[in-house]
Order: sequence, then C-alpha cells, then structure tokens
Amino acid sequence: MPVTDPVALTAELIRCRSVTPTEGGALMLLEGHLTEAGFTCHRVDRGGVSNLFARWGAKGHGRTFGFNGHTDVVPVGDTAGWTVDPFGGEIRDGLLWGRGATDMKSGVAAFVAAAIDFVTETPPDGALVLAITGDEEGDAVDGTVALLDWMATEGEYMALCVVGEPTSRETLGDVMKIGRRGSITAYFAAQGVQGHAAYPERAKNPLPAMARLVTRLSGARLDEGTAHFDPSTLAVTTVDTGNAAANVIPGVCHATVNIRFNETHSPDSLTDWLRAEMETVAGETGISFALETRVSGDSFLTPPGDLSALVARAVEAETGRRPEMSTSGGTSDARFVKDFCPVVEFGLVGKTMHQVDERIEVAQIETLKQIYARMLADYFANS
Amino acid sequence: MPVTDPVALTAELIRCRSVTPTEGGALMLLEGHLTEAGFTCHRVDRGGVSNLFARWGAKGHGRTFGFNGHTDVVPVGDTAGWTVDPFGGEIRDGLLWGRGATDMKSGVAAFVAAAIDFVTETPPDGALVLAITGDEEGDAVDGTVALLDWMATEGEYMALCVVGEPTSRETLGDVMKIGRRGSITAYFAAQGVQGHAAYPERAKNPLPAMARLVTRLSGARLDEGTAHFDPSTLAVTTVDTGNAAANVIPGVCHATVNIRFNETHSPDSLTDWLRAEMETVAGETGISFALETRVSGDSFLTPPGDLSALVARAVEAETGRRPEMSTSGGTSDARFVKDFCPVVEFGLVGKTMHQVDERIEVAQIETLKQIYARMLADYFANS
Ligand SMILES: [Zn+2]
Ligand SMILES: [Zn+2]
Repeated sequence: MPVTDPVALTAELIRCRSVTPTEGGALMLLEGHLTEAGFTCHRVDRGGVSNLFARWGAKGHGRTFGFNGHTDVVPVGDTAGWTVDPFGGEIRDGLLWGRGATDMKSGVAAFVAAAIDFVTETPPDGALVLAITGDEEGDAVDGTVALLDWMATEGEYMALCVVGEPTSRETLGDVMKIGRRGSITAYFAAQGVQGHAAYPERAKNPLPAMARLVTRLSGARLDEGTAHFDPSTLAVTTVDTGNAAANVIPGVCHATVNIRFNETHSPDSLTDWLRAEMETVAGETGISFALETRVSGDSFLTPPGDLSALVARAVEAETGRRPEMSTSGGTSDARFVKDFCPVVEFGLVGKTMHQVDERIEVAQIETLKQIYARMLADYFANS
Repeated sequence: MPVTDPVALTAELIRCRSVTPTEGGALMLLEGHLTEAGFTCHRVDRGGVSNLFARWGAKGHGRTFGFNGHTDVVPVGDTAGWTVDPFGGEIRDGLLWGRGATDMKSGVAAFVAAAIDFVTETPPDGALVLAITGDEEGDAVDGTVALLDWMATEGEYMALCVVGEPTSRETLGDVMKIGRRGSITAYFAAQGVQGHAAYPERAKNPLPAMARLVTRLSGARLDEGTAHFDPSTLAVTTVDTGNAAANVIPGVCHATVNIRFNETHSPDSLTDWLRAEMETVAGETGISFALETRVSGDSFLTPPGDLSALVARAVEAETGRRPEMSTSGGTSDARFVKDFCPVVEFGLVGKTMHQVDERIEVAQIETLKQIYARMLADYFANS
C-alpha cells in the first residue's frame, strides 16, 4: 500500500495560487485525496471563502481526533526578491521553497498524509476530523468560524484538536502552544477647536492631550504575567493629524492602540480601563475624546493536561525534544477552536513565514508527519 | 482739481482678479494713476511675481515717506458661499464687498489716493515712495523682499515706512502695530525600529518618545512677555505616523511645531533649545530624532518714538481714538521692511479678511485716506 508523501503534497499545494481569499485549487486537491481514502468531505463556503470539512469514521460523540489548518497564504510581496518562483514548489539543497512552505501548506500536508496513512493502515475505533480553512490570513470571519458554525449545526464533533501552525522556534519540536494572548485594538479621536497658530488662545489644541494619553497608556503595566502567560503588552501603533498647514492648530487627531492580553483581562475589562484613562485625560485637559474598539480575539489557554501531554510525548518520541508549552506570539485560529473543544498547536519552525524566499527543510515535513501519526496512534491505542 | 476717490479705486482693484501670484491688472491700474500724477514708476518682476515701485520727488536721502502694501489676494474659497460676486466690487448697504476689500486693496487704494492728492495739492519738499507687491499672501520670497533688494541696488531710499495692512481690531483706529512676533517651524522625525505588535520587545516604538517630546514642548513656558510683546507661544500643529496596520509597531513618526516668538528669542536660540529638548528625550528613550527648521520671519519691534507718534497723532485727529501699540497677530511684510527703515503698520478693521463675503464700510476707506493724508501733511510740515 503506497505511503502518502507529505513533501510531494506540500509542493502540489504550493503550486495552487491560494492567496487569501482565493481557493486556487488547494482544497479541491485535498478533497480528492481524502475522498479516495474514505473520508466524507463537505465544502463549507461562506462570504466568498471556501473551507473543507472531512471526516473518517462515524459521526457522533465517540473518540474523535481533530486537526485544523489553512491552505490560504499571504501575498508573495516583492516578487523580484524571490530566488525561486514562489508558486513553483521547487526543491533545492534539501529545502522546499515557495509561499506557504512553512505557513502552512506543509503542516496541512503533514496531517493530511498522516491521517490518510493511519486510517488506511490501522483503521481506528473512532473518527478523525480535518477542518481546513481558506481564510486564516485575512479577516478570518468566514474561515474556521464558518467551519465550526457548520459543524455545530450538523452535530459534528471533535473531542480535541491540534492546529498545525508553525510553532517551533529554532528546531522542530522545541515549542508547542497551549494558548495565545488575545488582541484588542482601540481607536481614539481627540476633538479640540481649530485655529490660527498666531492666536493659540482662541484654539484648543488636541495634540498635547493626545500626547498625554499616549504617555499614560504606553507607560502602564497591565499585569505581571501569569503561570502560563507573559505580561500583557500595549503598543501605540499610530498617531495621525493630517494637518499640512504649519500656521494652523488642528481641531482633531487620532491614535490607535493595540493590546495583546493574557487571561488576566477580557475585552470588556480593557475597554473599561481605556475609557477611564481617556476620561482622566479629558478631565485634565478639557479636550473631548471618543473611543471605538475592535476585538480580534480573546485570549485562550488549554491548561497542561491530557492533550498537551499527548502532543509532547509524540514530539519527544520523534525528535528527542520535550516541547516548551508557550502562549506567546500573535493570534491563530485556535482562538476560535477553543470554544469548541480543547486545542493546542504544534508545527514546523516558522522563521521564514510571510517572508520572501519562504522555505523549509524537507526532512522537517517528513518528521512532522511522523509526529502527527504518532499522536493518532497514541490517542487511539487506548480506545 | 479732482480729488482721488479711494472707494472707487478699491472697487476697481477688486475687479482685478489678482489671486497670488497673478498680477490681474491691479499693479497696471495703479501704475497708470501714479504715472499720471507725476510718480516715477518701475516694475520689479522676479520669480513670476510682479511688484510696483513708485517715487514722487527726487531720488536721494532727503525727507522720504514710504508706504508698503500688497494687491494680491487669497483665493475666494467657497464660491457658492458668497452673497456677491467676489470680484464684482459691489457696494451694498454702505459696504464695499469683495475679495481684498479689507486685505488690502482698500489700504493700498487709501494710501495711493492720499499720496496722489497730496503731491498734487501741496507738493512737498521731499519724496514719497510706494512699494506695492503682488506676493504677500504666498511665499513672499519674490514680493516686498524683491522690491527692497532692487531699491538697495538702485540706491532708492525711505526714511520710514507705513504698511497699510488691516490692523484695527473692533473700530478703525483702535490698534496699530509697532512690531510682530517672529515665526519658526520645526519638523521632527523620530526613528525607531518597526515590528509586529505581538512582539513589542523586538521593536522600538517611536510614538511614546514623540509623545514625551510633545508634552515637554507644549508644556514649556518660553518667556513671560516683554514691555511690548506678549509671551511667545508654541503650538504642536501635527503628529503623523501613517501606519494603517494595527498589528504593526511603526518605525518612524513625524511632528511639526510652530513657535511665535518675541524679541527674547532668535531663530538660532530657539533651534538650539528645540535640539536640546529633543536630545534629552532621545537620551531618555533610546529613540533617535532628526530636526529641521524653517524660519518664516524674525520678530521685529520699532520701539515707540517719532514714527509711532506721527501715526498715532493722525489716527487720533481723524477718529478721536488713540491707537494701542500692539505686536500681536501673524507675520506681515513689515518683517522685511524693518531691515530697511523704521516701520509701523496701520489700517482698517480686518475682521472679514480671508473669509467668504469679505467686506468693509466705505466710510472706513474714506477715513483711512484722511488718516494717511494727515500723516503726510504732518511729516512734511516740519520740513
Ligand atoms: Zn498560518
Ligand atoms: Zn494682507
């Protein structure tokens, strides 16, 4: 019986031009392989985005192992800067090159290959579910969320889920993620009274007030971190006025603040705090402020337990390294999956992700498949 | 002998569409009237801008009274907002309407009419010089400066100069200007290191440092004012970053600061102070800064004396009001004239200048001509 080659499958996926939100043939390719291996496949399309749900085994609430990942990729950026065709899927010097080589066509190929071989060689007493989205790098509102919505409606189930994002830092296996910080963005507007720079007493300049707010917020210590999380961080990402006339005092200015927060906070508690800081400055300066917030993701933590132990055992068995249980980095679709079932993330070294000349050692992809295969064997061995 | 009508002359000038830097026929019109009255006229054209020099009497360093003003006007702005044709020169309800009615075709018409009548009726033992520019509202680099350069080269002279800008505040005669504050604009750039908002420890955000600088500068008290000047003022006019990505910490941001300064400071002393403040913040934050400055005008003061007394006497005789000797407001061409001879400014109530429906009482224009005529009579009476 032929063994599924995760490197060849990654290369095939790289040749699909699936820049968000384009499907590019990537999900169709996977659907073909999975259907052939006995998976029941369903395309969940929403808002111009395509997603793929695949299940092997019976629908129900029995022992069910889930994988989640995405086939969409970020744009190639500076095309002239690439050594290779970013959609060529070329192998050179033991490396597979191309957009999505690390983030994360390789991860998807590794768990798809592991799943196909596993159900083919040792059909388990239970089910495997693969939830693969085409909208992770974009707004992500019609991606994994759409898949989970559909699964809830259809009574589909996962007992746990491993997200195949590139979590390793320096060497395959050194880091897994058991949580992520949340992200909230605050948009401030400060409203004063415009006037001529020669008569500042007739104007009310909002800029000193905004500077005061920026100083207060960027100097604040949000928390000391927790057992599993680094301290929350705040970054003022932009302050803009757009006043080209040096003899005019502006009437309004804007600032944006992004907070990456741990379990100490919630979007609501942070919004309350931001509003209180803003009102303090408004009171001190006589400048009125407005605030709008946008929540990109709440923080989540799957506390160390059965799932993280299962993943760590598989990683250690294949690589000799016991992965650090991290919660650092940006957001991922795990922030949606956590509302559905326990979730952790494990995958390749992500150093070149989103960059020109994105590439990965082919050996890493092969080992990753073996790690995922070992998780499956371990999980179903006790059934 | 016909008396020159300053209201009709203002209306004629308003009908010339002399929006900076267009001459629009305004200087040509004046040149015609002045030549006819015996003035020697010379057009000083530089950098696409036209200016008019006119002298009655002998060239030399004898008793010579100078007037300075401009015929160019700012754009009409919101055309639909005007009650009248802004270039119609229409009189309604005792008011003359149109762009330039207060700033300052009326002022030019008043001193031209006063000068023509004076040399015609009572030819003095001395000279009159009119330096009229077509570039005051723009960059002003080829306007009064060009006239003064040309005058210096040609050995032309003024013993003193009255600038006919609208200086009155509420009622004609309440305010004259014996000086103006200077203006310097500083452009700051703060340079950090761009990065991802999820990893603030790998980036160096320039915004908190810029906020710190803005707070320091806008909180500084530059001086307490002087006998003739209000305290100097500082306005932060813009802070801009232009970072649209809320998940990115920016690498650079810009701020502009405008200072209106009195005789306590010079452009050099202020530049030194700004640089020291900037370097303090750079040292405290580890963010590097760059600074560029642009000087729009040095401060100037013609201390109360013969010239201001001459003007005040004429104003009081015609209006019954003794003008306040002010140094407030924006810059004017007096900042250039002060390097050539003692200069003060006196003119109409400027309330509607640069606005839609700019207009002025015709009676004010007539009185202004009488005030200028009285200055001439007074000045040459003692010769
Ligand atoms: Zn990814
Ligand atoms: Zn003017």
